[in-house]
Amino acid sequence: MTLNEDRTNFPQGAVVVSIDAMGGDSGVEAIVGGIELSAKINPDIRFIIHGDSVEINALLQKKPALTDLVVVRHSDKVVEMDTKPSQAVRSGKGSSMWNTLQSVKDGEATVAVSCGNTGALMMMSVLRLRKLPGVQRPAIAVLWPSRNPSGHNVMLDMGADIKADAEDLLQYAIMGASYARNGLGLKRPRVGLLNIGTENNKGRPEIQEAAELIEASQEASALEYIGFVEGSDLPSDRVDIIVTDGFTGNVALKASEGTAKLVGQFLRDAFTHSAMAKFAAVFASGPLKRLKNRIDPRRVNGGVFLGLNGTVIKSHGSADAIGVSAAIKLAFTLAQNGFSEKLAARVASAAAASKNTTSKTGEA
Amino acid sequence: MTLNEDRTNFPQGAVVVSIDAMGGDSGVEAIVGGIELSAKINPDIRFIIHGDSVEINALLQKKPALTDLVVVRHSDKVVEMDTKPSQAVRSGKGSSMWNTLQSVKDGEATVAVSCGNTGALMMMSVLRLRKLPGVQRPAIAVLWPSRNPSGHNVMLDMGADIKADAEDLLQYAIMGASYARNGLGLKRPRVGLLNIGTENNKGRPEIQEAAELIEASQEASALEYIGFVEGSDLPSDRVDIIVTDGFTGNVALKASEGTAKLVGQFLRDAFTHSAMAKFAAVFASGPLKRLKNRIDPRRVNGGVFLGLNGTVIKSHGSADAIGVSAAIKLAFTLAQNGFSEKLAARVASAAAASKNTTSKTGEA
Repeated sequence: MTLNEDRTNFPQGAVVVSIDAMGGDSGVEAIVGGIELSAKINPDIRFIIHGDSVEINALLQKKPALTDLVVVRHSDKVVEMDTKPSQAVRSGKGSSMWNTLQSVKDGEATVAVSCGNTGALMMMSVLRLRKLPGVQRPAIAVLWPSRNPSGHNVMLDMGADIKADAEDLLQYAIMGASYARNGLGLKRPRVGLLNIGTENNKGRPEIQEAAELIEASQEASALEYIGFVEGSDLPSDRVDIIVTDGFTGNVALKASEGTAKLVGQFLRDAFTHSAMAKFAAVFASGPLKRLKNRIDPRRVNGGVFLGLNGTVIKSHGSADAIGVSAAIKLAFTLAQNGFSEKLAARVASAAAASKNTTSKTGEA
Repeated sequence: MTLNEDRTNFPQGAVVVSIDAMGGDSGVEAIVGGIELSAKINPDIRFIIHGDSVEINALLQKKPALTDLVVVRHSDKVVEMDTKPSQAVRSGKGSSMWNTLQSVKDGEATVAVSCGNTGALMMMSVLRLRKLPGVQRPAIAVLWPSRNPSGHNVMLDMGADIKADAEDLLQYAIMGASYARNGLGLKRPRVGLLNIGTENNKGRPEIQEAAELIEASQEASALEYIGFVEGSDLPSDRVDIIVTDGFTGNVALKASEGTAKLVGQFLRDAFTHSAMAKFAAVFASGPLKRLKNRIDPRRVNGGVFLGLNGTVIKSHGSADAIGVSAAIKLAFTLAQNGFSEKLAARVASAAAASKNTTSKTGEA
């Protein structure tokens, strides 16, 4: 924490976001643009920007309002989108991604944001920040459009790991609930386990075992377990957090994004199909814009890595300034609520409770 | 085959569909309505209708054009939607579902269609028709809206079994390709394996092993293996058949259906949100109807059970007359192309090829 004052001169108590300016598809401009948008809405955030300082400073020169809100740290190296995670970790020291995480590790920033290579960011995050004691597999949680009042559900894991046993699924439930309390403001989030049917006897053995574990931890973890949910429940308002392994979660997310895009394309086709349709499109432009805003993935941008000593937010690789600013907003909310510390405490107390249960069972 | 002539008096060479009139959400009316629609378009199909003969005959009385095209067989029992598959099999003898399958088993019909309980229909189909020699796990294949010229991809397994090892995934590829040749008219279908990335080293061990098996069987199975595909590729035009285990397939299907419904609801919301929006909706009704038709699930209704001695089509439980007639159309196409025999031959030759390879390897 001393480092913070020494090196950045940011006011004490400011929320500091460490942000990787490199590696996204839309370049440094999207990052600086996102910072500008965020700073306008919320002047209490400060930024440590990691990347090519020449490029970053050239953009910052045109934005004098940002001068006192940002510190630029030069990095020579960039982790490219197609670099294998294992290679990124081996040769990534000194890259903008590495340095972005280092600022959180050193305590000069509370949360890290990057648009870069997901696999590399996850592996590097585990290496730099380390897993929370008691966490076997960290997870990536994303917001999913839903019929809930907040407009979203939380779903995890989205692909941090391809496997998850019953204990992992329990931890996903606990971490997801903590995230929903601190990121979405839900008091007692409803947790569902993704399965191919809602009857108790359905699905793989690890899912049935996880169901028992989550149900037993409801009180200790301040969550409500609602049972199995199906793929069709992902956008529903009967659940807040959907727990699944990273393979299934990743496929479900990408399949749904693909479907939404296909429907969007069919909609465009329908309104350009004939002269009459194009005429109708003029009248329909208001409602169509409203629909577009509502399903705009840029407005809910940000996968959160859960289970590490520190919060890392993975912004979509193709995020533009609006997308980056959504990721920054999420970072700010979590940092301000002391999410990292609360999550660590929650995981620790769950581990302790489970130990007690185990030893009790052992005694009985 | 003698039974056919003895009991139904249908002309020789007619394609006979055995259809379960009970168990669907929309009742017997949807079934008889679907038969009527199909008979209008294709007078060469004949039907054996199983179910409550009083109810069925009352509806048929108003449709004299069907008199010579259908035979009604009475069943006292119905397998309900919420009956557990194991119980349905134990107590289902004599039910309309059982008898529908029996007509295929006895050779008086070529293909069975039912709107009933999927799990029960699958378990009963395995019991009545038996698995093809060499098939360990039968699969359910569905049509998926896509950007391909046909408008669809084939995806399997959609939930016949929650597990699939490498050999099962290979068989899904072979069976899916045979289905695409006979049901969609594709000469050399492109097969992709569903994974969470397209790099060779991605995903679970059984998927990596399956990739090698499918690649090696390309020539023998008359398919083109294109490698791993992701959830976002499900609606794409770079693949015709997507192979995955039944757990992942079921979640992906239901998640995508849920997403399409959510977007549809948002679209309705957008066009009813204000007086101005409602005014716009009047002009937009043409294009919106066009969109609705294009994503209407009733028009591509029918999951096909693959890997059995006989073809069984599971129509959506909520199918109306249009949905039922789509399932009948699929049944007719497959029956006319001799799909059951071709699939059996394909599976047998793949098994023989694999045995040769194994023994060769053994010798080497």
